[in-house]
Amino acid sequence: MKKVAIVMGSDSDLPVVEKAFSVLEELHVPFEVFVYSAHRTPAEAKALSENARKNGFGAILAAAGKAAHLAGALAANTTLPVIGIPVKSSTFDGMDALLSTVQMPGGIPVACVAVDGAENAALLAAEILSVSEPELADRLDCRRKKAAEKVLEKNQSVHDTYSKF
Amino acid sequence: MKKVAIVMGSDSDLPVVEKAFSVLEELHVPFEVFVYSAHRTPAEAKALSENARKNGFGAILAAAGKAAHLAGALAANTTLPVIGIPVKSSTFDGMDALLSTVQMPGGIPVACVAVDGAENAALLAAEILSVSEPELADRLDCRRKKAAEKVLEKNQSVHDTYSKF
Amino acid sequence: MKKVAIVMGSDSDLPVVEKAFSVLEELHVPFEVFVYSAHRTPAEAKALSENARKNGFGAILAAAGKAAHLAGALAANTTLPVIGIPVKSSTFDGMDALLSTVQMPGGIPVACVAVDGAENAALLAAEILSVSEPELADRLDCRRKKAAEKVLEKNQSVHDTYSKF
Amino acid sequence: MKKVAIVMGSDSDLPVVEKAFSVLEELHVPFEVFVYSAHRTPAEAKALSENARKNGFGAILAAAGKAAHLAGALAANTTLPVIGIPVKSSTFDGMDALLSTVQMPGGIPVACVAVDGAENAALLAAEILSVSEPELADRLDCRRKKAAEKVLEKNQSVHDTYSKF
Amino acid sequence: MKKVAIVMGSDSDLPVVEKAFSVLEELHVPFEVFVYSAHRTPAEAKALSENARKNGFGAILAAAGKAAHLAGALAANTTLPVIGIPVKSSTFDGMDALLSTVQMPGGIPVACVAVDGAENAALLAAEILSVSEPELADRLDCRRKKAAEKVLEKNQSVHDTYSKF
Amino acid sequence: MKKVAIVMGSDSDLPVVEKAFSVLEELHVPFEVFVYSAHRTPAEAKALSENARKNGFGAILAAAGKAAHLAGALAANTTLPVIGIPVKSSTFDGMDALLSTVQMPGGIPVACVAVDGAENAALLAAEILSVSEPELADRLDCRRKKAAEKVLEKNQSVHDTYSKF
Amino acid sequence: MKKVAIVMGSDSDLPVVEKAFSVLEELHVPFEVFVYSAHRTPAEAKALSENARKNGFGAILAAAGKAAHLAGALAANTTLPVIGIPVKSSTFDGMDALLSTVQMPGGIPVACVAVDGAENAALLAAEILSVSEPELADRLDCRRKKAAEKVLEKNQSVHDTYSKF
Amino acid sequence: MKKVAIVMGSDSDLPVVEKAFSVLEELHVPFEVFVYSAHRTPAEAKALSENARKNGFGAILAAAGKAAHLAGALAANTTLPVIGIPVKSSTFDGMDALLSTVQMPGGIPVACVAVDGAENAALLAAEILSVSEPELADRLDCRRKKAAEKVLEKNQSVHDTYSKF
Repeated sequence: MKKVAIVMGSDSDLPVVEKAFSVLEELHVPFEVFVYSAHRTPAEAKALSENARKNGFGAILAAAGKAAHLAGALAANTTLPVIGIPVKSSTFDGMDALLSTVQMPGGIPVACVAVDGAENAALLAAEILSVSEPELADRLDCRRKKAAEKVLEKNQSVHDTYSKF
Repeated sequence: MKKVAIVMGSDSDLPVVEKAFSVLEELHVPFEVFVYSAHRTPAEAKALSENARKNGFGAILAAAGKAAHLAGALAANTTLPVIGIPVKSSTFDGMDALLSTVQMPGGIPVACVAVDGAENAALLAAEILSVSEPELADRLDCRRKKAAEKVLEKNQSVHDTYSKF
Repeated sequence: MKKVAIVMGSDSDLPVVEKAFSVLEELHVPFEVFVYSAHRTPAEAKALSENARKNGFGAILAAAGKAAHLAGALAANTTLPVIGIPVKSSTFDGMDALLSTVQMPGGIPVACVAVDGAENAALLAAEILSVSEPELADRLDCRRKKAAEKVLEKNQSVHDTYSKF
Repeated sequence: MKKVAIVMGSDSDLPVVEKAFSVLEELHVPFEVFVYSAHRTPAEAKALSENARKNGFGAILAAAGKAAHLAGALAANTTLPVIGIPVKSSTFDGMDALLSTVQMPGGIPVACVAVDGAENAALLAAEILSVSEPELADRLDCRRKKAAEKVLEKNQSVHDTYSKF
Repeated sequence: MKKVAIVMGSDSDLPVVEKAFSVLEELHVPFEVFVYSAHRTPAEAKALSENARKNGFGAILAAAGKAAHLAGALAANTTLPVIGIPVKSSTFDGMDALLSTVQMPGGIPVACVAVDGAENAALLAAEILSVSEPELADRLDCRRKKAAEKVLEKNQSVHDTYSKF
Repeated sequence: MKKVAIVMGSDSDLPVVEKAFSVLEELHVPFEVFVYSAHRTPAEAKALSENARKNGFGAILAAAGKAAHLAGALAANTTLPVIGIPVKSSTFDGMDALLSTVQMPGGIPVACVAVDGAENAALLAAEILSVSEPELADRLDCRRKKAAEKVLEKNQSVHDTYSKF
Repeated sequence: MKKVAIVMGSDSDLPVVEKAFSVLEELHVPFEVFVYSAHRTPAEAKALSENARKNGFGAILAAAGKAAHLAGALAANTTLPVIGIPVKSSTFDGMDALLSTVQMPGGIPVACVAVDGAENAALLAAEILSVSEPELADRLDCRRKKAAEKVLEKNQSVHDTYSKF
Repeated sequence: MKKVAIVMGSDSDLPVVEKAFSVLEELHVPFEVFVYSAHRTPAEAKALSENARKNGFGAILAAAGKAAHLAGALAANTTLPVIGIPVKSSTFDGMDALLSTVQMPGGIPVACVAVDGAENAALLAAEILSVSEPELADRLDCRRKKAAEKVLEKNQSVHDTYSKF
């Protein structure tokens, strides 16, 4: 199976990004993790994404905060799907990172998820690989079913505890 | 090759969505276009995405404005990648559609692009299919090169016309 | 009397939604409580609202955060009044949930209250039922009077304590 | 059947509010229209809502822009459901009116719809009356079905015209 | 000297409003404090402002949060200057209260100060009274001078401690 | 009677500010008009406000757009009431000017009105002068009554034309 | 004298950027103009800023819209001052470009000016060069004086035309 | 070497501004620190910037919160480069200070950095001085290299710890 590259702009983003590790592991999707900054190590970031396809990657996750250029900078050097995770920092609740990630100009797409949405970014990467991996698609479907079952259990308990009629 | 499903919440979104048609055509990616509303035709929207994988689709594009639930509603019924295009309407410059599309809860990912970003949504769908389609990857690379060349031509002309030194 | 259905997208919304329980109990309005997610259990959410009128409900409360599609998804399957409670989550102070709830497209109304406004959502449900239940209208009027009296008591005490003239 | 009171803060809101008239007429819901300003004619606004229930009204629609206090001012004097329509004015795209309408303090609910959402406000009023008027519920269901059919017709035409596969 | 009326929508606003008390006391401006809600006690709020001028008031301060209608509701019933203090509540950092206070429609002015800006509201009230009270003007000037002196002391200490040249 | 000083940051603000002229004229309040920029002519702006009280002014209106420092810069040099009119410019709908005007630090108050709210700024100046000018108070009351009458006339005509019951 | 490099992300930014040309010409500051996109021509953009200092440049202006990464991408490859001009595009009034430009992470500074603020960007570049060019400082002072004189002329004419006292 | 003037509007800004001191010290750039308020000590602020160039300063840093006029007020009295640091205060996450600092009118430039971005403000000042100080340019380049090395070390450690492939 193709691997997923997970890149964060700073190791301070680890608490947000870690959720992606467990999702991919759970789905048996191989992944490599990098700390590359679009601004402090532009050359390494460029090299990573330029060679990603031939190095066996099928999708790239990029997590960054503030003027979050990382996803866009990686996307500028590859035609693999790049998924951007805007990271909330000390001001603006992540709105700066969201707009810097999602408002890409025509020609260079980035797939943006919610602020701090590393779980969904990992799921999206798995969904992308699942297009040509039926067994991964099955694992994704199975995960969905389990999540639904958990909601229904909660529903039973909440309905019985709180309803008055 | 897998097909791309393009869904819009209302046919008034056509002027925005049409840019996706030409991009996919140019890249020789087959696609089908639908008008389904998450609110007015929820059953048909559900059926489309529930059956998308087995009907030969590899990605779904969903364009909607205001409280833009379409991408999320489609994503709730498939584990194929769903790409959301927030459409600008008469108020809030598309911020309502952007937040309604991108801020998905954990478990149900949507890949969000810029407001009215149909061109990038189509490119993202092609990038997703390109993971297992090397020739499509080549066509995407080629498109990038042409775009870069155009910028460099403009650069030459602008540099020569406006510089004073 | 008609019942009120209270639906939350996740049981983590309980601390917000609980305020609605006590208001309805105080007003002797029967209610049932559900945990259904528009995205994780779309079928159950649909079934609930599709059958709500014939199952004796007169109004539906829906509480959800982030890309809060729950109220809209329920409203898509019923012509009973649906009241949306945008829930504040970890970013954007509930603005994402507010816009996702209030900016519904024409044809499918949702009655939106303030962020985390479960008390007012319950009062609104009671006001809706009071249109054909004069005794409930009296109880609502009575509750208003008591609230006014409390303000006037505070006024007396604050005026006497702090004025300097 | 109970009547609906439609109040606008200024006759300049008529182009927005008029959509409510046609919806209510189409659904055979009687209504009266008023121009009362929370600020310029506070006494008349108060009298209207104080007497609304005994004058045969079942719901009140209030449309206002900027610091849109009208819905709240009416709600302060009645326990009938009050539906607020935030009207877009020359700045802020109606965000000022939206927040002034939706962010009501606990105890005095307002049911807020989208900016300029007079169509949905009228539908919501009809839904409220439909709780005790089965025939009106049928008319609302019928209107929904027609809207769905229109979408499906558009879908057919758009699908046939634009798909390439 | 004319008195200042200080009105808050809820006694939970006291911690914000108290700063106004000490400023007015320091400037020897008499004031009375009230807790009146535009929504829960509309009649008392109206009576207060309707009679304010003849009861010896020269300015009214109104502090409220969320859909902060209090200043506007008071202004609707008097032609005395009304100063609005938007109070920050649990969401939106006071932006809802700010827009509800400042975006008044033409004809009914409110003088809005910063979110939680009770100190400046009190100073503004004193400035208003100072137009016809030269001694109060002198006290205001004196307070300014003292504030400037404090800044200059800080400047001396900071300059000496931190400069490196 | 004291005069009102009306200052604008640029003569391009004239179309907004002119509304203040007619209001003050109608109320027989004398006024002088200035074009002084906080940034381009800081010395003249300072001189104006420093001498305003002794030159017979009772209030200062300041209209400016973008990083609207004019009201604050004038307020820094006088203890007369300064009324700020945030002017809408080519971006941000006046939100930049609003925040730059209203969010004054403690100690230096500015009375902020709505974006482009010159009419209310003029009324507020008149209300301030009316504290010690009973005849002006009467003229203000009279203007209010006429405005209410106009609303009631509109109400009659709209009610008769559009109601269906 | 050192030259100024003016870079725009797309030649569609020319109408905004042109204002910078005339300012620099007027001040006799030599400049070269480039069209380089951070995303479409990342290699050329990098080469330009990497070599800017040794090629005789003293400051770099970068104008871009939407997820405006250009200034940051240039700043990542030089320690010359980089001035970012956020360009307003079809949505969000330039707020996306502003946040993408100004919210740079620690270590890589960008000097941001107002949305579409090319005039000030050029002046800032000239001010930077003026630190070691006294004659340029004189030309900047002179330009300021002329601007002040224009304001004072307008003031005379407006004061005489509109004052009533 | 020219000195840098660092001005803060209040000594409560010290925790934010201190980061600038260490950066400048590290780069051997001399600096003086001042506490001057645009509103409380306008005369001293004016004198500082009016005389800054002849007093040996090459750049001015100005840190202020809320309606942050300080940078603009300093810029109004000098043609030296003025760098504004918007400081986050108790509301709006620094958006008020950002817009008050960055949205300067044409003619009076301010170089704005991120909210609380004192580190970058100091680096920007050093970059400005480096235009005519090659050794400072070398120190800046050296600092960049060290920062990149730190990122690469983190990358090694994170890659080895978290990757699964």
